[in-house]
Amino acid sequence: MSHTPEPHTPASLRTRIAEVIFGFDTPAGRTFDLVLIALILVSVLVMMLESVSGLGESWQFALTVAEWVFTLIFTLEYGVRIYVSDNRWAYIKSFYGLVDLLSILPSYLGLFIGDINYLLTIRLLRVLRIFRILKLARYLKEANVLVRSMVMARRKILVFFSSVLVLTTVFGSLMYVVEGPENGFTSIPKSIYWAIVSITTVGYGDITPQTGFGQFLAALVMLTGYSIIAIPTGIFTAELVQQVTQQRQSVRCGRCTKADHDIDARFCKHCGHGLEGDT
Amino acid sequence: MSHTPEPHTPASLRTRIAEVIFGFDTPAGRTFDLVLIALILVSVLVMMLESVSGLGESWQFALTVAEWVFTLIFTLEYGVRIYVSDNRWAYIKSFYGLVDLLSILPSYLGLFIGDINYLLTIRLLRVLRIFRILKLARYLKEANVLVRSMVMARRKILVFFSSVLVLTTVFGSLMYVVEGPENGFTSIPKSIYWAIVSITTVGYGDITPQTGFGQFLAALVMLTGYSIIAIPTGIFTAELVQQVTQQRQSVRCGRCTKADHDIDARFCKHCGHGLEGDT
Amino acid sequence: MSHTPEPHTPASLRTRIAEVIFGFDTPAGRTFDLVLIALILVSVLVMMLESVSGLGESWQFALTVAEWVFTLIFTLEYGVRIYVSDNRWAYIKSFYGLVDLLSILPSYLGLFIGDINYLLTIRLLRVLRIFRILKLARYLKEANVLVRSMVMARRKILVFFSSVLVLTTVFGSLMYVVEGPENGFTSIPKSIYWAIVSITTVGYGDITPQTGFGQFLAALVMLTGYSIIAIPTGIFTAELVQQVTQQRQSVRCGRCTKADHDIDARFCKHCGHGLEGDT
Amino acid sequence: MSHTPEPHTPASLRTRIAEVIFGFDTPAGRTFDLVLIALILVSVLVMMLESVSGLGESWQFALTVAEWVFTLIFTLEYGVRIYVSDNRWAYIKSFYGLVDLLSILPSYLGLFIGDINYLLTIRLLRVLRIFRILKLARYLKEANVLVRSMVMARRKILVFFSSVLVLTTVFGSLMYVVEGPENGFTSIPKSIYWAIVSITTVGYGDITPQTGFGQFLAALVMLTGYSIIAIPTGIFTAELVQQVTQQRQSVRCGRCTKADHDIDARFCKHCGHGLEGDT
Repeated sequence: MSHTPEPHTPASLRTRIAEVIFGFDTPAGRTFDLVLIALILVSVLVMMLESVSGLGESWQFALTVAEWVFTLIFTLEYGVRIYVSDNRWAYIKSFYGLVDLLSILPSYLGLFIGDINYLLTIRLLRVLRIFRILKLARYLKEANVLVRSMVMARRKILVFFSSVLVLTTVFGSLMYVVEGPENGFTSIPKSIYWAIVSITTVGYGDITPQTGFGQFLAALVMLTGYSIIAIPTGIFTAELVQQVTQQRQSVRCGRCTKADHDIDARFCKHCGHGLEGDT
Repeated sequence: MSHTPEPHTPASLRTRIAEVIFGFDTPAGRTFDLVLIALILVSVLVMMLESVSGLGESWQFALTVAEWVFTLIFTLEYGVRIYVSDNRWAYIKSFYGLVDLLSILPSYLGLFIGDINYLLTIRLLRVLRIFRILKLARYLKEANVLVRSMVMARRKILVFFSSVLVLTTVFGSLMYVVEGPENGFTSIPKSIYWAIVSITTVGYGDITPQTGFGQFLAALVMLTGYSIIAIPTGIFTAELVQQVTQQRQSVRCGRCTKADHDIDARFCKHCGHGLEGDT
Repeated sequence: MSHTPEPHTPASLRTRIAEVIFGFDTPAGRTFDLVLIALILVSVLVMMLESVSGLGESWQFALTVAEWVFTLIFTLEYGVRIYVSDNRWAYIKSFYGLVDLLSILPSYLGLFIGDINYLLTIRLLRVLRIFRILKLARYLKEANVLVRSMVMARRKILVFFSSVLVLTTVFGSLMYVVEGPENGFTSIPKSIYWAIVSITTVGYGDITPQTGFGQFLAALVMLTGYSIIAIPTGIFTAELVQQVTQQRQSVRCGRCTKADHDIDARFCKHCGHGLEGDT
Repeated sequence: MSHTPEPHTPASLRTRIAEVIFGFDTPAGRTFDLVLIALILVSVLVMMLESVSGLGESWQFALTVAEWVFTLIFTLEYGVRIYVSDNRWAYIKSFYGLVDLLSILPSYLGLFIGDINYLLTIRLLRVLRIFRILKLARYLKEANVLVRSMVMARRKILVFFSSVLVLTTVFGSLMYVVEGPENGFTSIPKSIYWAIVSITTVGYGDITPQTGFGQFLAALVMLTGYSIIAIPTGIFTAELVQQVTQQRQSVRCGRCTKADHDIDARFCKHCGHGLEGDT
């Protein structure tokens, strides 16, 4: 009686579609995800190729066609996602909903402002479309472990960045005095840009010190950068080593329901309740 | 009797101002700090923009006005800080007192030597003013943990730096022989500058080896630099891992005397006893 | 009876040759390996020199002769390896079998298509021969420990790489809008190439941002790259630290059953009992 | 009787001088070392300046005089060191003895071959003299801790370097095929030089890929280099973390006299003998 099979109402179909396109557990859901990942990657590739000048006429035509095929597929996907969501407005306003919208909007906008032939507009639309790659964020759940380590060390990292910015401001300003506009250090912001290029050990070489004292200062900047690269590594490694070696228990305390206990803990560290059931 | 409310004497006002501008605990103190940080950042930005050539006449005028507004505000702040300090001379001679003075002095100096139109003087004054950013040091207290780790490893770091300098001297001198002035290695100091650029993996490319043997030597320098970057990282990480481990060891349970509790533990994980003395 | 000495049949000779050329334990096997390593290194050196233009006629002749001597030696080695293998087809299809074949094939191919004087063909054949260096893989067994650590952390590393690729796509596309073809960012793929050059802190300087906003974005890319280099290091170090710790835990004393001994410990540090079973 | 004060024989003088110039413990010895370090640094500075062209006539003369003063002082030091050594020949053949000789020899050689005005000879002699800086090695004893960690990880480091060299050979050869001499990759050795510049993230930019496929390959090389920099860091950090957290006992076993026991060890791990004196 309680198992009366429901007829094929749209509602049940909706549930099953939702399982396929939002879930990761069923075979159909996994296949859907793999196909979607492939489509995203190919469409991003197509948009990259579109920006390469010097392709023949026929290539350009093929790319435009492919572009519209992808836009229609992603529009369909966006529509179905809205349709099957229990809370439609919540999905539309969510990060993934916005990314899904952003990945189709530029193509349609291109139709309306297509006759405005400004280069910047064309470039901008093309690039907005390439953010389709952010649709992949859904599948990078594994990154959570890394992100969590970074969140735990966020105060230390913030302090590190502030120190680096103060250091580059100081060194950049000094170089502006020492080298001056005649050697490429035309303004303080540009000198700070040079200091960041040097302290991060990137070293483009578009601006380089020419005077002896400038080269001495530059050597100081580089050695500083070479040494303090140890700091973010040290912070992050210490967090990770602690996480790996401690292997926190997934057991939850029966009284205060908090988790995160050591592997050898017999009592909850938050409320003192016994963890094995009877104290 | 002991609570006789004091009348509004300058002394009590002084105490309350001191709480606001030196303290971090009261809401008013925190607001003051946030406003000051914003002022510092904006004034540094203004000074950076001033150094950019090609800005219009009206922009230059606006920046000069803004510059003087900031100077007056910081002068007022400096005066008030001196006024409310218990030990005024100690504040003036302290690091923060000197930075506060340095951040207003160059503007006033500019008035007196303004007619001397040497470019270097102008650049120097501008840059001295930008050291206003050091006023931020007050708010980077968090950096202490990082600085402490570095201080503890200072002998190892000093040895590391001496070794790097000896290495770059040796490699730079060798390149001076092998490549010579005709390939850009015009003197030993310049060759050492090149060696530092290479061993820190910055690689501007303003001086590069041209001969086969020179390129072979350069490859050696780069591989050395690529490997020994592990040393400061290793030293710093080992210090940080040890600090994290030690913090776990320092809290002992009052009942079972066992240690190795998490930093945030409130109850002993071995016997359930409260860690703060009485449960 | 069971020790009847076999006559010198080809089979027993085969076994003994197999021991020499496949084994690492006998003195003859070690000598064979050292000679082979030397031959590989010298032959790779010869091929490198061949690609250097500007060598005299007589040098070219000597290198060609040397090249053929090496080819014949490696052909002989390949033949003998096939001859003494128990499962010949398995050897031929194995990684090492293919590398051994690849290291001689290009020389013979060069005979047949020698009259086709296309530069690309010549360059291709030369390079295929240089993969002879992969014959060294046989002797890098030690690398297994490192490779194992990487395999264990492969999911985290894959996630890291995907994130880096998404980041460089986003930053590269933004730079394509901001800087545009007139500043060297001629297409999105080229802009992504620039983003990879910058985020890995390589910084060739063949493409550099020219506009102020572009340089600001570039500074962001560099600081990001400078910070996230901590992630692979952290992952790898945590794995290695855990492996070292685990190796200590795996040996237990037979008498007091306590663990945590050093790798090189022969006696239990807690009770003095021999760790190898009988003292 | 046993305390009969010896007369001032040369032997006792020799012992006392030996204490001063070889020892680090007495105040006189420390003063001697500090003066010597200062002399070395100043003399190296002088030699660097000598290589800078464009200095005036009078400067050149002053530097030459300073150079000869230093040479005479170091000659005196070398003579005294030989004189007071117990085993003179051992000192002369030791690393420090050779460095001491090398730091004075080039100046005297310059007298004899001074009329041969080849630039290379002059440059060579100048550089040989700059190796005086190696005299500082005596005072970098602290580096031993770092060197020991590296020695313990030497097999892993060797494997790492071999892998990097094989990788750069393979990538360099591929780039030689893909880009070819017309884009600066004029020979396989030069292409390998480029691969080392790229994989170590130095990136001079003197040779850069021009074709699309070449830039794709280059991106692979850079990402590889960016990731495998984690390997030496991980190896070195794991060694250091183990050393720091274990804090090996300096106690030696009474039976087998071996040290390097854990801090909680009660029995020698090498021979099972009790470490507290009585088993």
